[in-house]
Amino acid sequence: MTTTTRDRIVGASAELFRRQGYTGTGLKQIVAQAEAQLGSLYHFFPGGKEQLGQEVIRWAGLLYQRLVEGFMIAAPDVVTGVRDVFAGAAETLRQTGYADACPIETVALEVATTNEPLRRATAEVFGSWIESGTRGFRRAGIRSHEARSLAIGLIAALEGAFVLSRAMRNTEPLEAAGEMVAQAVERAISATG
Amino acid sequence: MTTTTRDRIVGASAELFRRQGYTGTGLKQIVAQAEAQLGSLYHFFPGGKEQLGQEVIRWAGLLYQRLVEGFMIAAPDVVTGVRDVFAGAAETLRQTGYADACPIETVALEVATTNEPLRRATAEVFGSWIESGTRGFRRAGIRSHEARSLAIGLIAALEGAFVLSRAMRNTEPLEAAGEMVAQAVERAISATG
Repeated sequence: MTTTTRDRIVGASAELFRRQGYTGTGLKQIVAQAEAQLGSLYHFFPGGKEQLGQEVIRWAGLLYQRLVEGFMIAAPDVVTGVRDVFAGAAETLRQTGYADACPIETVALEVATTNEPLRRATAEVFGSWIESGTRGFRRAGIRSHEARSLAIGLIAALEGAFVLSRAMRNTEPLEAAGEMVAQAVERAISATG
Repeated sequence: MTTTTRDRIVGASAELFRRQGYTGTGLKQIVAQAEAQLGSLYHFFPGGKEQLGQEVIRWAGLLYQRLVEGFMIAAPDVVTGVRDVFAGAAETLRQTGYADACPIETVALEVATTNEPLRRATAEVFGSWIESGTRGFRRAGIRSHEARSLAIGLIAALEGAFVLSRAMRNTEPLEAAGEMVAQAVERAISATG
């Protein structure tokens, strides 16, 4: 697989934004990590950091959605899939020294009140995740409205557990939150008879 | 009540950190909003922004804990209390144009990998919240281990719902997450017989 300069810039930005936020990441740090030139960055992203930010949010958001969908598809049932998503997230956190969690969460909080184009990009990603989760729960036989509530509950519990687990440097929050969501999904499926 | 210069500096910092993050907030912006001088800030906080950051995290964390405990104490039962916490958070978000959510969440994500003293301050606050929630659920008759899991689940769901609700500019995530937690608490209480 060939990695283009553009890919390297987007990938390096995604990692830096995820770990230290959008505001705390400078373009010079991005090009250094991507082994690129500042001129290349402006060639691909004439709108500078904000245009790059929108691209990174959409790209990293889609990648993360595919990762979570992969866990759900590989699992024998949807409840096991939910547990696997949280267990996989916990494993990644441990392996990266509690650095790599949700790729867009830090940015989402930073820009929610301060940068409308970037806020909209994060809202689109979360909207797409909710739709994907809703589809998955509906396939398991859960009614439409409840499937959507569970998808939102799953994403909220995962995002919040990331905040706690990163701050506390242990995976207990991901385990407790994952168990709460798994049990909620289990009961919703039992209720469908 | 007299507001001292020190109080105004801490209060203004808390609001700015919550809305735009720690990295994106400059000391000049803080003193302007606090109607103080930069010299006063360094008088009270000789360690500068980092010392101020630690103080703000602890102060705002404790204030928010008291607010949530107030909702729980005022409610006729613990399940209603959980619903009231999420409904109150949704109301505050709506009233502030989706700006004011958890006072330490944005900072917690920014500093988790980049600033060890501030990371520890956020971990202490979350630890104190978990202990407070665990005590509340134990008083409702829930066993110790499950009470702690539910407290973590509540805080995770609330923090994650804040991310989604602020990004999407609607309170559906807080409503869905709150209902998931309330039902989990309700079942835990039924199970105690």
